[in-house]
Amino acid sequence: MLVDQGLELLSEADCRALLAGGEVGRIGITLGALPAIFPVNYRMIDGAIVFRTAPGSKLSAAVAGAVVAFEVDDYEVADRSGWSVLAVGQAEVVHDPDMTVKAQTAHLEPFVDGPRTAHVRIEPTFVSGRRLVRVLDPGD
Amino acid sequence: MLVDQGLELLSEADCRALLAGGEVGRIGITLGALPAIFPVNYRMIDGAIVFRTAPGSKLSAAVAGAVVAFEVDDYEVADRSGWSVLAVGQAEVVHDPDMTVKAQTAHLEPFVDGPRTAHVRIEPTFVSGRRLVRVLDPGD
Repeated sequence: MLVDQGLELLSEADCRALLAGGEVGRIGITLGALPAIFPVNYRMIDGAIVFRTAPGSKLSAAVAGAVVAFEVDDYEVADRSGWSVLAVGQAEVVHDPDMTVKAQTAHLEPFVDGPRTAHVRIEPTFVSGRRLVRVLDPGD
Repeated sequence: MLVDQGLELLSEADCRALLAGGEVGRIGITLGALPAIFPVNYRMIDGAIVFRTAPGSKLSAAVAGAVVAFEVDDYEVADRSGWSVLAVGQAEVVHDPDMTVKAQTAHLEPFVDGPRTAHVRIEPTFVSGRRLVRVLDPGD
C-alpha cells in the first residue's frame, strides 16, 4: 500500500499547508454510476477547498452534497521525489455573494472562459499525505 | 461542466497517445466506503494501464475487479495551458510472469522501495480528454 511502504506519512499540519499552497487539484466524483477524476484550479478559503464551476453543470450536480475525494500532488519524475495529499469531505455548491468576494480576494479564477459563477466548497474531514522517501544507492 | 465550457474535447486517439506518454497518473478508488485518489507511476502495456503494487495491500484489495478512474494531466499554471485525460475501466491484479517481463521491458519501476511484486492492469473502457483553450485578450 502506498501509505507505508517506502513513503513517509505527513502530519495533518503538513497536509493542510501543502493543500494551502496548491493551485491545481483533482476531484474524484461519481458521474452516471462511474468514477471520474477531473482537475480543477482551487484555493483554500476559510480552511475549505473552493473551486468555481458553472451552475447547473454536470459537475455541479455531481458534487452537491456528495462526499468527494480531492488530491493535490507534486512530482519530479527525474529524481523520483514528490508528495501527495488526499482530502475527503462533503462538497456543497455555494451561491453566497460573500464567497464570491472571498474567492476574488484569493485570486480564484478559472483557467477557462465560461459562466463559472457557482463555487464548490469542500470541508476536508479526513486529510492524509505521503512523501516519497529518496532511495539511496547501496553505495551511498 | 468541464467537458465543453472553454475546453477542447480530445479525440480518443489523442487521449490514448497522451496516456501512453505519461509516467505518473492518479487512480480513483473506494477505500472503506470513502472515495480516495492516489498517484501511481505507470506504463501503457498492450493498450492497458499497468502499475505495480504490493500483493495483499489495501490498494491491491481495493482495485481487484473494481471499476476505477485513472487520470493523467499536465498543467503550466504560469500560462494556464494544459490537458487532462480520464480513463475508466475494470482493474485486475495480475500475477503473470509474462507481465513481470513486459513491465521490466517497459521500465515500469516503482518510485519507492517495497515488495511491489503484483501488477494492476486497467483496460480502459471509456477514455475522454480535455485541453485548455488559450484565452486571448480582446486586443489580440
